Amino acid sequence: VAAAGGGTDRDFPRILVDMNPAVPDRNRAAAGLGPSPGPALAAMAAGLAGRGAEVLAMPCNAAHGWSAELCAGAPAARFVDMVAATVGAVATARHARVGLIAVAATRALGLYRGPLHARGIETIEAPDAMVAPVVAAVKAGDRGPGVRAAAAALARQLVLEGADAVIAACTEIPLVLGPGVSPVPLVDPTAILAGATLAAARLSEDGPGGG
Amino acid sequence: VAAAGGGTDRDFPRILVDMNPAVPDRNRAAAGLGPSPGPALAAMAAGLAGRGAEVLAMPCNAAHGWSAELCAGAPAARFVDMVAATVGAVATARHARVGLIAVAATRALGLYRGPLHARGIETIEAPDAMVAPVVAAVKAGDRGPGVRAAAAALARQLVLEGADAVIAACTEIPLVLGPGVSPVPLVDPTAILAGATLAAARLSEDGPGGG
Repeated sequence: VAAAGGGTDRDFPRILVDMNPAVPDRNRAAAGLGPSPGPALAAMAAGLAGRGAEVLAMPCNAAHGWSAELCAGAPAARFVDMVAATVGAVATARHARVGLIAVAATRALGLYRGPLHARGIETIEAPDAMVAPVVAAVKAGDRGPGVRAAAAALARQLVLEGADAVIAACTEIPLVLGPGVSPVPLVDPTAILAGATLAAARLSEDGPGGG
Repeated sequence: VAAAGGGTDRDFPRILVDMNPAVPDRNRAAAGLGPSPGPALAAMAAGLAGRGAEVLAMPCNAAHGWSAELCAGAPAARFVDMVAATVGAVATARHARVGLIAVAATRALGLYRGPLHARGIETIEAPDAMVAPVVAAVKAGDRGPGVRAAAAALARQLVLEGADAVIAACTEIPLVLGPGVSPVPLVDPTAILAGATLAAARLSEDGPGGG
């Protein structure tokens, strides 16, 4: 909504949302300890497309490990890939060595590491033991000074280890890590996804299938 | 999400949202200058119920003028009426003379005035000329000090005129009017709706149709 920047109600794109707490845990699935979130994501995509969604966005980095299943659930919709859009932005900015703040599933599946290494960009990854408590606190509604300090410490540690940019690669992280905290650029996949989704929605409105 | 107060992803109710900028303007419709929002609201309710929604909430006070049409679109779902829940809360709190900050449609249709007067509660209504600019600014993304000051002035004026409570009866108003600004209680229909919707959702989970 903020990125759309509309002046009145009618200036915003139509948005259908499915917030589903029954999607199986991504970290447990990636570790082989629980069921795949794929079928639930496919059903959600199908439901949204059935209601008319032409563009799909999934604001969860880790769940992108199952984006193929999501897309299979709604083959006619355009999926805006948050990881691909972010990797593209990092490559365009010519960063050489990026720090990654991500949960266990994102790291275990190499969602960012794979495409970044393929472009010759090095990665430094924050350890799960430091990331997981911050994410858990934000999920429980805590965005206070203690959580913010822990998130800032994560970013600064990555910079000390040589990162020339930091990717806040879990949607909870940008909620407690502002751009002023890190001495290097902070890359926010959520904001990149919002912009890319709006661009895709406008293309969809203008295109032959629009209206 | 804040009212649900969950500790992890799985503690929240499933939420389906339809943000539809094509719903006809409520103020124009109430003034007889534009089409009714009823058919669009009925279609949205039917779509959400078709995806499994058992409880419906509509966080727009003015649109409650067409809640009968909304409910007709999804007769099996339980509609949580924001206006009725708020009037109930005001009556329970034994307020005698409440100030109303609402847009033209809400006032023209007597959505709050009718049921409040029926309970012997007097109303004092802020004039459109003062409310409309605040609502327009918030819709355009402005929640800055100027807008907050204008909203606070609205509440204080109603108190000067004798209100012993103020209802922020347009969803844009609580975004720029905190509880600390008014010397009398501020009644927030959006917060009341969130609480009533969660209660209804929990009943729905526990009931025979739940699961």
